[in-house]
This record gives sequence, C-alpha cells and structure tokens, in this order.
Amino acid sequence: MNSYAVIGTGAIGGYYGGRLAESGRTVSFLARGDYEYIKANGLAVASKAGDFTLPSVDVHNRASDLPERDVVIVSLKTTANGGLRELLLPAVRPGTVVLVMQNGLGMEEEVAAWFPEATVVAGMCFICSQKTGPGRVSHMDYGSLTIAAHGPDSARSRDVLASLKADFEESKVGVTVSPSLGEARWRKLLWNIPYNGTSVILDADTKEIMDTPASRRMVRLLMEEVVRGAAACGYAIEAEAVDRMLEFTDRMTPYKPSMKIDRDFARPMEIEYMYLRPLKAARERGAELPAISMVAEQLLFLESRPYARSRKV
Amino acid sequence: MNSYAVIGTGAIGGYYGGRLAESGRTVSFLARGDYEYIKANGLAVASKAGDFTLPSVDVHNRASDLPERDVVIVSLKTTANGGLRELLLPAVRPGTVVLVMQNGLGMEEEVAAWFPEATVVAGMCFICSQKTGPGRVSHMDYGSLTIAAHGPDSARSRDVLASLKADFEESKVGVTVSPSLGEARWRKLLWNIPYNGTSVILDADTKEIMDTPASRRMVRLLMEEVVRGAAACGYAIEAEAVDRMLEFTDRMTPYKPSMKIDRDFARPMEIEYMYLRPLKAARERGAELPAISMVAEQLLFLESRPYARSRKV
Repeated sequence: MNSYAVIGTGAIGGYYGGRLAESGRTVSFLARGDYEYIKANGLAVASKAGDFTLPSVDVHNRASDLPERDVVIVSLKTTANGGLRELLLPAVRPGTVVLVMQNGLGMEEEVAAWFPEATVVAGMCFICSQKTGPGRVSHMDYGSLTIAAHGPDSARSRDVLASLKADFEESKVGVTVSPSLGEARWRKLLWNIPYNGTSVILDADTKEIMDTPASRRMVRLLMEEVVRGAAACGYAIEAEAVDRMLEFTDRMTPYKPSMKIDRDFARPMEIEYMYLRPLKAARERGAELPAISMVAEQLLFLESRPYARSRKV
Repeated sequence: MNSYAVIGTGAIGGYYGGRLAESGRTVSFLARGDYEYIKANGLAVASKAGDFTLPSVDVHNRASDLPERDVVIVSLKTTANGGLRELLLPAVRPGTVVLVMQNGLGMEEEVAAWFPEATVVAGMCFICSQKTGPGRVSHMDYGSLTIAAHGPDSARSRDVLASLKADFEESKVGVTVSPSLGEARWRKLLWNIPYNGTSVILDADTKEIMDTPASRRMVRLLMEEVVRGAAACGYAIEAEAVDRMLEFTDRMTPYKPSMKIDRDFARPMEIEYMYLRPLKAARERGAELPAISMVAEQLLFLESRPYARSRKV
C-alpha cells in the first residue's frame, strides 16, 4: 500500500485522490485557490460509483509543505506544466513514483528528464468528471484508469505498476496496465483530440456532436488521423478502435470535455500537449495530419481572442 | 455589343449589370424582394472605381417577363440553384449566352445539360462587393473578371468570349479570358475555400484572419489542398499562386466574405457548390482533402444550428 501526494485537487486529483483516501490510503493534497476552503470543509465527491465525503483531508498550499509520499500524482492541467518542475522538486526523492494523470503527449519524457531518480508512470483517465466548486467534484460517467511505465521494462516498473493497480482497485477504480506508454497515450488521444477541439470550435457537448451527422463524420475523420499518427510513431491501433470509441461516446452521459469547460471559464486550453506535441511527433516521422492541424490552428486562433460564453441562441 | 438580362440583382448582378448599363448596354434585371424599390428608385452603386446611379432601370419580378436578351447573367447565390432551371427556361433560346457569375464548381455543367442550345460561360468575379440595401451596392475593392467557355473550344465560343470581354472592358471591368474553365474555377476556389469557411467558423474578417498567425497558417493549408484537388482534376496550379493569393488578401480592404455575410443574416451558406462539389470531384479522382473536409463538416454543423450574430465580446 502506497502513500500519495496529489498535485492539483480538481476534477481528476479530487476524484482519484479522494477515492484513494476513502479506501484508507494516506493521501496529501496540494491546492492553491481552494486551499482555505478544503482545509475547512474537506472534499465532497458526487459519484456515479457512490457519493462520498472526506470531512478532513491533509491539504497544503505550498509544494514544499507536502510530506514525503511514495507516489506523487500530477493532476494539474498541462497548461500549468511551465511550473511543474518547481512543484515536483521538494516532493521527488530517489525512488519516488510520479504518476502523470494528464492529457496529451510527452509529459512523462519531460518529468523523467527532470528527475532521472524517479519512476515515472503515465495515468490515462477514462472519466467524465468536473470540479463543481472548491473541494467539490462531480463524477458523471466511466472512471477507469490505464497505467503504463515510462522507460524500459524492469522489475522495478512492474512492481510499481502492480502496487498502483492494487491501490486503485481497492479504491473502486478499475485499472488496465499497458505494456506501452506510447501506445496507451495515443489510444487516449483517440478520444481527446476529436472531442476536445470539436466541442470548443462548434460550441457543442458530446451528445450534440454525436447526434449531428456532420460533426460525427468530423470526429471519425480526426480519429482516423490519430490512428495514422500513432502508426507513424510505431503504435498499431486497430481500425475497430475508432468504432469502439464512437460507441463509447454514444453511451456517454452528455458531457462537456475538459477543454470546453476551460474555454467556458476563459482559462487557457491544453493545445500544446494535446495537439501540438502529437502533431510534432507524427511530423518528425513523416506523417502530416491535416485535419488535426486545422483543429489546432482554429484553437490557437480562438485562444488569441476574448471569449463570450456561447453563441447559441 | 450584347444585350443583357441579369438574374439576381445583388452584390454581383447589381455591380456588373449596373456597369454594363452605365456604359450604354441594354440591361434588364430580375429582382424579387427588391423589385418595387428598384422599379421606383433604380440602382445606386458606391464604387472604388467611381460611384454611379441608374435612376431608372428595366427591372422585372418574374423571369417570364424578361425581354429576349443576348446574354443571361446568373448572379444568384448557388443556394438558389434548385430553382435556377425554371428561371432560365423563358430566357434561354438557341444561341443565348448564359454567363454564370457564381462561386463554386459544377454550375456550368448543370446549365449546359439543361440547355444544350445555349453557350455557357463561367464568370469568376475577383471582387469585394456587398449589397447594402435594396438596389444599393457597395464595391469596396478589386473587381476584375475571369471568363471561360464551357465545352470544347470553337469559333462560336471564341467570338462569345471576345464580345463579352469587349462589353465589360468598355464598362470599367477588367477581363481575363481563360482557355480552361476547370482551371479558372479551381483558381477562384483557391480564394473562396479558405476564406469563406474560415471567416464563418472563426467569426473573423479577412484582416483578422491574415493578421493572426494561426489562421494565416490555416488558409495556407487549405490553399495547398485546393492546389492538390485541382491537380487531381488535371489542372496544374503553380505553388506560387498560393503566395500570390495570400498577398492579394493582405492588400485587401478588411472584408467579410460572402458566406460570412450570408451567415450573419441567417441565410443558407453556399456549402454544396463551394465545398462539397470540389471535394467530390477530387475524391472521384483519388484525392482526399482532409482539411477542406473538416471545414465543410464544420459548416454543415453550423448550418444545422440557429445563429446568434457573433460571439465576440
């Protein structure tokens, strides 16, 4: 049983960190804006898998105050990754596991380069969840986790993956261990790339996207390019994975992807790690992905503009 | 010197038909909603090349009332082409010239199939103009015309092109005669495809598009696909044409493309002839154009939704 520090107590860190704490793991949280509220009121999670509250949690507002923990969960948005190294510095010691629960591509390589003494693991969260207020998380649908170790296979990485899997599964979180971090990241991009950008550009949730023939064709076209990008990087994603991802989204509670929520709250969007890094990786291996490039440029254009909540009438 | 009937008295028909009338050609206009106003007040054109008014014009509100004319100019939006054959029926006789001043691909083939006895000519309008009210047109920039005959080269088509060129050039309209209708149509799409869709999707005029690096890259990417589509259809457009089109737009008075204006007034958009037909033509010849497909699907999505004027704050 590992102990945990959670950097970023929002829709992801609040949910998964909360689940780990609820099942009896030692969990410390880092929060900034919500620190006072969480310190006074704890965490409350409304979850499809069962609501729970943690009236008192070990929360800190400075990374240097976090106690030493076996596993550091990174659950900030990648838009904050400019400051991530500094946040991790006091928390990472030789042998610390850094579990990167972010969306995009290339985050683990950066963390491993900063901290060669750490064991870096990717966590792909297949979840519909949202922070609904300070210390408040709503978990609407799904919730399983895929984990994969960065770097070559080793007894150490296998042990770490097994212990993480055990901790999460005892905390009501289903876990799949993937032997390939790269493949697992691209499989997650298969959802993130089409739905995040499309929801922002068309001002639509997943149900509207799936119920309209034009946007349904759009997400399929984008998914097919993700498969091509993955293939260029050496990861074979079977064609049926596209159909499965469409069905997965058809069954989903109508949902605003995280980028749409960020945009609605005028926060920066995760364009860099979710779009530009995958495009760069594919391009360096000779694959141009024009539909994804279009979405990336449109998002960059929108990011450069002030935002009015919605143009719906 | 030809006589003219103008079907559609808006930004294009009002300007070019007005110029022909101003220079002394016999010109009859078809107008529907604006008929009474134009009958009472004529046409007024505010033009970069010199303002002019035609206090009294020969205007009709039924196609069957149009007098017999040598040339019928089609200057409706292609969104009205479902009713075009019926409008042309009373106006087209053996030897009538039909000059199609629309944007898109494939209109001339349809007109020629309906009226094999007519001589069909494409008119590509490189103009920034806008209808500002009934019988009122604002011509902001550029204004030249490229014309090309449909069907095989013949003495008849050469004569027709020469007489049209003479009429327009005596009416302050520069004319280029192209030997290839297909090539000329794709060269016009080189502007229409990137700027029309981008302006609608990003809620931006040409200056905003050109001044923002992301959208500037977008229009270049779209132009490069237009060049690939043209090549698939057998028309070689040199790579420098892309740079020239970007420079042409850089020099342009900030402009809302016609599709953006249509969208702003909640009118249907010219998606079919401007996007779907070119995509189909390229696809039938083995060329997929994913960036253009993305724009087409986004426009189809937006067309299926009610429109609020602008999401700018």
